[in-house]
Amino acid sequence: MRIGFIGTGIMGGPMAGHLAKAGHHVVAWNRSAEKLAALAPLGVEAAQSPVEAARDVDALISMLADGPATQAVLLEGGVLAAMPQGSLLIDQASTPVATAKTLAAEAAGRGISFVDAPVSGGQRGAEQASLTIMAGGSAADVQRALPLLTVLGRVTHMGEAGCGQLAKLCNQLIVANTIATVSEAMILAEAGGVAPAALRDALSGGFADSTILQQHGQRMIEGNFVPGGRCTTQLKDCRTASDQAEALGLELPVTGLVRDLYAQQVEQGGGDLDHAALYLLLKRLNGL
Amino acid sequence: MRIGFIGTGIMGGPMAGHLAKAGHHVVAWNRSAEKLAALAPLGVEAAQSPVEAARDVDALISMLADGPATQAVLLEGGVLAAMPQGSLLIDQASTPVATAKTLAAEAAGRGISFVDAPVSGGQRGAEQASLTIMAGGSAADVQRALPLLTVLGRVTHMGEAGCGQLAKLCNQLIVANTIATVSEAMILAEAGGVAPAALRDALSGGFADSTILQQHGQRMIEGNFVPGGRCTTQLKDCRTASDQAEALGLELPVTGLVRDLYAQQVEQGGGDLDHAALYLLLKRLNGL
Repeated sequence: MRIGFIGTGIMGGPMAGHLAKAGHHVVAWNRSAEKLAALAPLGVEAAQSPVEAARDVDALISMLADGPATQAVLLEGGVLAAMPQGSLLIDQASTPVATAKTLAAEAAGRGISFVDAPVSGGQRGAEQASLTIMAGGSAADVQRALPLLTVLGRVTHMGEAGCGQLAKLCNQLIVANTIATVSEAMILAEAGGVAPAALRDALSGGFADSTILQQHGQRMIEGNFVPGGRCTTQLKDCRTASDQAEALGLELPVTGLVRDLYAQQVEQGGGDLDHAALYLLLKRLNGL
Repeated sequence: MRIGFIGTGIMGGPMAGHLAKAGHHVVAWNRSAEKLAALAPLGVEAAQSPVEAARDVDALISMLADGPATQAVLLEGGVLAAMPQGSLLIDQASTPVATAKTLAAEAAGRGISFVDAPVSGGQRGAEQASLTIMAGGSAADVQRALPLLTVLGRVTHMGEAGCGQLAKLCNQLIVANTIATVSEAMILAEAGGVAPAALRDALSGGFADSTILQQHGQRMIEGNFVPGGRCTTQLKDCRTASDQAEALGLELPVTGLVRDLYAQQVEQGGGDLDHAALYLLLKRLNGL
């Protein structure tokens, strides 16, 4: 298949490489050209513009920074208009649900299939082709996207267009709230004379265990807040999740509270630290 | 060793049985005698009173319902007074930290060693001798308790007397807050057209994964709120954790919020449901 690929950054770069290695003809565009040059040895062809990457493709994968960047390039930038009728657009960026629905409607109007397929698993997941991929779209469209997506990781069909993004938001709110929770437990333990490392060790394997306890708990123990996922990004995700809840008429009290805590962390200058650094905010709020 | 064992209920019964099977002479007392009779085939001797179970022991293990019951039996009931000087008291009930500190001081005054060693892992953990045991006490006292405790599960030394109870509170607050978090994610998913079962499937193995997502998430999907751990018990634990935080001069915002949610769940008549039923409260609060 001829595949257009837009956005070959930390995540998109290895993803485009995996598709080329799987035997597809990948034509990629990226804002900074040196990232494209690095992919040339893998057989990824460099396009001079997003529109060039979209011409004559069977499918186009977009992996841009966020919803506004995605809409700007795919819609205003003319990518969707340049794609052949009958082709397939897969957006793997994390965007608001509304962006996915807009793209789905615009694509449908041009006879193009659309799947939103945001990912979890980070740079490592992209490099090892072990991403968690949450796919939204019709059963037929998701089925059509599967041969490409399964090259990149494990795919679950979440529902209609937009449901991939919604599942990603659920993932992100669980991550944020669990970081806050593990932070509070670590702070209570420390204040009462229990070493956080002993707490993590004791709780491993039990009801209180989680990926966050293991990974972000270890960061708290080591005082290692070099990102990883930044607090600014986590705040953006918390806000998108809360906004989506509000749009659906829901009030999610823990999610709202943790969003406000991340907002404080960013306001106080800790936005560029790893999202595990909510632990530092909660310590500061307690004068520790 | 001659071991006294007080409280052979759902948890204490199998624990006393494991110690007898390990070759110890176990003399046990329980409020209702039929639970003692069931242990006779395992070689557990029935005592007629708590004080009788305490005489001439090398160590005594107490596994009563809560802090007040523990203080009533061990202190006012004369158990500690009946224990030989130089023996070892291990309290495996979940009690406030202050109860553990009181017991430690009273024991020290009589030349008796004390370890607080509350457990996590439930009935199944007790039956399979796979409990998580959080031990508080001096290094020497915990070392002395280890040959008995390792018969029952995996032991971590958390710090001085009371630190086992503090770690257990940290465990319980993580459980409560994570249940609230998974509930909110499930509700957001459902409202936007993502099946909760698909969400749990997609998130398994990733950053958002936890024992609670797996076990309590499955309960939410199935609508199975037969306890398990009850909401009333979870509320008690949330309150004990919040009170302990306050005693240490801490404010833990997520823990406080989730305590208030469990209080609503119990006030609205859902106290006897499994603690995963916080999901039902959050649905009701959203008119679902």
